[in-house]
Parts: sequence; C-alpha cells; structure tokens
Amino acid sequence: MPNLPILVIGGGPAGLEAARGIADLGYNAILVDKAEFLGGTPISADYAAITPDMRNTEEAMNEMIEKVTDNPLVDIRLNTIVTASEGEAPNLNVTLKNGKGDETINVGSIVVATGFQHFDPGKETQMYGYYEYDDVITLVDAERMLKAGDFVRPSTGEKPKQVCFIQCVGSRDRQIGNFWCSKVCCGIATKEAIEIRHLLPDCRVFVFYIDMRMYGFWEDELYWKAQEEYKVNFIRGIVTEITQRGDTVVVKGEDTTMGRPMEVPMDVVILSVGMEPSEGTKEMSKIFDIPLESHGFIETIGGALNTVETQVPGVFAAGATTGPADLEDSISTGGSAAMKSCAFVRKADLKLA
Amino acid sequence: MPNLPILVIGGGPAGLEAARGIADLGYNAILVDKAEFLGGTPISADYAAITPDMRNTEEAMNEMIEKVTDNPLVDIRLNTIVTASEGEAPNLNVTLKNGKGDETINVGSIVVATGFQHFDPGKETQMYGYYEYDDVITLVDAERMLKAGDFVRPSTGEKPKQVCFIQCVGSRDRQIGNFWCSKVCCGIATKEAIEIRHLLPDCRVFVFYIDMRMYGFWEDELYWKAQEEYKVNFIRGIVTEITQRGDTVVVKGEDTTMGRPMEVPMDVVILSVGMEPSEGTKEMSKIFDIPLESHGFIETIGGALNTVETQVPGVFAAGATTGPADLEDSISTGGSAAMKSCAFVRKADLKLA
Repeated sequence: MPNLPILVIGGGPAGLEAARGIADLGYNAILVDKAEFLGGTPISADYAAITPDMRNTEEAMNEMIEKVTDNPLVDIRLNTIVTASEGEAPNLNVTLKNGKGDETINVGSIVVATGFQHFDPGKETQMYGYYEYDDVITLVDAERMLKAGDFVRPSTGEKPKQVCFIQCVGSRDRQIGNFWCSKVCCGIATKEAIEIRHLLPDCRVFVFYIDMRMYGFWEDELYWKAQEEYKVNFIRGIVTEITQRGDTVVVKGEDTTMGRPMEVPMDVVILSVGMEPSEGTKEMSKIFDIPLESHGFIETIGGALNTVETQVPGVFAAGATTGPADLEDSISTGGSAAMKSCAFVRKADLKLA
Repeated sequence: MPNLPILVIGGGPAGLEAARGIADLGYNAILVDKAEFLGGTPISADYAAITPDMRNTEEAMNEMIEKVTDNPLVDIRLNTIVTASEGEAPNLNVTLKNGKGDETINVGSIVVATGFQHFDPGKETQMYGYYEYDDVITLVDAERMLKAGDFVRPSTGEKPKQVCFIQCVGSRDRQIGNFWCSKVCCGIATKEAIEIRHLLPDCRVFVFYIDMRMYGFWEDELYWKAQEEYKVNFIRGIVTEITQRGDTVVVKGEDTTMGRPMEVPMDVVILSVGMEPSEGTKEMSKIFDIPLESHGFIETIGGALNTVETQVPGVFAAGATTGPADLEDSISTGGSAAMKSCAFVRKADLKLA
C-alpha cells in the first residue's frame, strides 16, 4: 500500500519547495492553491525581481513551478480552498472546495504554507495618506510598475525626479498592534531603489529608515551597492506626516542623524509596508486547530530549535505562515517541512506494518 | 541492499538536525565531529542561553543530541576529522582520521555543517585593545561568565557598575575585508545585556550600535524587552578608540544620534564579534572541491531559491557554513539538507535498481 499523500496548502515559494521535496523523497503530495496559478505572492503581487538576487521573478518562480507540474507524484489543485478537516494525522479527512463542488481527501500529514499578506496602509490613513494622495504608493504598487518597466508618478504619468521610501509602515508599531519587524522590507526597498535608479538615472531616491536591517550578505550585495553604485540616499529619520502642496507630496518629520526637522517635497512616496498573517493562515489555524503565537502567526514548538513543527501532530508550517520570512527562509523551511511531513507519514506506516 | 549512508560533517545545531532528519526518513547517517562531544559551537564556546529563547544552552542542545545518540540509524564518530575524498556522489570514498588511525568509508551523499568561527578581535588590536586590556572582552567571553553565573570585571574580580557592548566588531568592515553583516550579534548582545541586568540590577548597560538588526520577532521579544523591562541603553554611535585611564577603560567615539563626541568610562567593554567561515568549512571546501562565494563561505547554487545545494552534485551544506546564520536558519537548513541528501541517495538507488 502506498503512503498516504501529504497535503501542501499554498503554492508560493515555501509550498512549492515542500511539494517538490515530498515528491523527491518518493511520497505523494497534493498541492492546493486558492488562485488559478502557482507561485504565490511573488506572482499574484507582480514582483518585478526577487530579493536579493535581482533575478526576474517570473523566470525564477517558473523554474520552481516546473519541478512540481512535471512531477507524477504531485497532484496540483488550483482554484481550490480547504474548508474542513476531520480526524487526526496520519488519518485526516480534509474537505477541498473548488468550482465543481466539494471533495474529501484522506491525507497522512499537512504542510501549511499559506503565507502572509501585505499591511494595508489604509489602517494609518491619517498619517501616510495612502488613500488620499495618488502619489503615495506601497512597495507592492512600485513592484508592479517596475515589472511593467515604467516607473511614473501615478497622478501625472510623468517620470518622477524625486522619490522616497518610508520604512517600517505597519511594522515595529505599537499603536496599530504590529509589534514585529517584518524583516524583508529593508532589503526589498533597497532592491527597488536600485531598480528605480537604474530605470531613471536622473531621479533622486531617498530611503527614510529607523535601522537598516540589511543582515548577512544583504549588507554589501544590496545596501553598499545601492549607496555606492546607485547613489541612493539613506537618511535616518522619522516621518510624522505626509501632506500635499501644489502637485507634490510633502514628507515631514525629523532627520534623526542631523537632529533637525525635515520637510521634503517628493514626486512619489513609497510606503514600505510590512507582513501580516494572511487570511488563509488565520483560516488554516482554525480548520486544523493550530494555536497562534502572540503576533498572530502560526506557532511552532520548541523555539529556535524547531522551525516547522506545530502543536498539532502531523501538521507542519513553512514560510511566512509562522512569521516574517525572506525567500531563503521560505525555501529552507519548505524543505525542512517536506522532510518532517514525510518522516511523520513513514513512522505512521511503520506502526501499521 | 540498504541505501548508502549519508555523511554529516559537524555536530552543531545544523548537523544534529540533518543527522536526525536523515534517520527519521529511514536512511543511514554517519555523523562526525572533530570534538570529543556533540553540540558544536554553542557547547564548545560555553554559550549560557540560546537566542532568542533564552533557554539554557546545554539543556536545549542535549535535547537535540539525545535524538541522534539514541538512534540506531545514526553512527556517531567523535574526535574524528575528514582528511580526503575520492570519487563522486553517490559513490564517494571518504577518509576519516581519529586517534586509532585512518578509515575509508563509502557514502552516497554529504552534508557539510562545519559552521563558523568567531572573529578574532586581535585583528583590530590597535582599535579595540582586546589583547591589551583585561576588561575588554568578547561576546563569547561574556557568555562564558554568564554561564558560570558570575559576571565580573576580569581585572579585579569585582562586580562591574558600567558595562557596554560595541557592535559590528569584525563585521560590516571594509578595512579588514569582512564586508558582511554577521546577522546574529545584535540579538546575542541584547540577550546578554538582559542577562547582565538580571544578574546585576545595579549595573548600567549600554549598547553602541550602527543599526540594531532585530529582525522579525526579535524586535519585541528581545529589543523592546531589553529597553523597557531591563532598562538597557541603546546608543547609536561609532566607537573609534578604546583606551585605559586609571583602572577604567574609556570608550571614545561619536554619539551619532546626538551628533556629539562621547568619551565614556566603562568597567567592562564587550566586543560583539562577528562570524567568519571556520577552518573546518575552508578545509571541507578544499577536500570536496566546493567553490566558495565572494565572502569566503561555501556557495549554494540558485541564489535565494536554493539554500543548501552546492555546485558539487550530492554535496549539501547547512548552517553557518554558507554564511551568517541564526539558530532558526541552522535548524531549517539542517532539515532541508536532510531532505535533499536523502532524495539524492534515493534517486541514485532508483537508477541502480
């Protein structure tokens, strides 16, 4: 009798890596995604290039996608959501719902890879004016323009002469209840800053930050590169208000390095929005009865020494499902979850044998 | 015929996780370490508590160690080094050397988990005076005292009244050729600052930093906790010189937030030394002919989308072998390397069958 299949929920980087890993170990994976395509947020949110490699996102994700679509051990279900679960691993009956109706599948283990959602700056409307001013956009809006190869002022369609990023929007923020640092926004903003300077050599680009969290090799591969090769201006400062004057947006705050107030007109302001648990992540926590940790992501057990195992036996989590994660994190935890879910199914089979 | 065993080199967190994962998947692991014990740097360097969990290091590592020592599929070889390799995976003949002599083993795949070494501040003697002044110590020296439960001024044996950490020693430093950020030192210094304040409530603790890279949940779990519960003083500043005056050490530099020069007497100065590739990592790169990346760590292929595969087929790398890594990174890449090495051996077996 073949092993019971392992259900991987979410077809982003972590889920793709988990499904491929499960198949490479000779186990069966069922990979579901609510979207009609694989690739997850990098594809649905139109990322131009991945961080820090600066490689075309579609090309990079397609390479991962091909490894599961060409794989006889991976059963892919698109436009599909998980609506219910009964029993306990290794004998779970999970209900999937798609356009054709409901189907219940019997699976031995679960990998939840339902990821994150971008912080909605509407929650801070008064401060940053995202929904008031056309020229105040997010990291994600900027990616979309960069992917199209045409970075313009949304209000006029003209090329901007002065652009800034505001870091930590929706992160490190007690007032809105998002206590965590979203980990990747410093790297992504810096990557976009490089892309803008590459596309528009006459446009000045500023990054207003609290700390530049360019850990590991991001330090020289992105941060120094941005400063030295691309002349991006990093300014340690706190932005307190964004207003409009004439046809420009004005950023007000304090340059905390120089210790003086600042008021700078900008053609485009990019809000570096952070990561929050996605609706799918919250939903899966309910369906599989997985406890959340204090920030609202799925909790793994064993602290730093156990990055993918949840409190529910046989149910694992990977990628930004468990907290802010960069691409490397998602790939590594996806791979680790593949290992642990297969080991779980194997152990169950040995007991039955 | 059983699968060829997988050789895991290095018994730190990444290697322990890899060996246990391989065994959990039903494959054979041979785990070698040059030391006479398992646990890697957290044990050999006497870490007091792991970051960010603040859990006793020995207790945490023993939990991981037990999972391999009690495992019939893991063959543990201590006091053992790898001296040579012949052939190609899945048919590698690797020479191990221990007190009894040489032995050649036939293995199907390799996981290199030989980790990092701490930056030697002697390389910056003139600036920080590590070898000149008794009261200038490193993060590692501080761990050792904290583990013993007795944090004192080395020069007098008395309890210090004023202690500071200096961040980025041996990291982010072009002059010494270490271009990278070592990723974990901000978290570890903050953890130690909390431990010192806990042990010595009358001692003032300062952290001089460039950026506090408290990514993800470290933000509130360590950084805010240190500031608010433990009253640790974080000062954005650049330290240019350490001298001695009377029986105190004087830290000179610039407080870059206040924009003024500073000159502060300290009873103990702790240098937050960064990570460099270990001698073992450099040695394994030579023996297995694995290319290094630009910073001198082992290179993985495929950028962010492939965190453990090296350019040599069947040879994988995990933990700080490939660059600065926190504990979570080491555990996730250890798990992922287990998956990929088993998948490699499985594929080779299928071809033979």
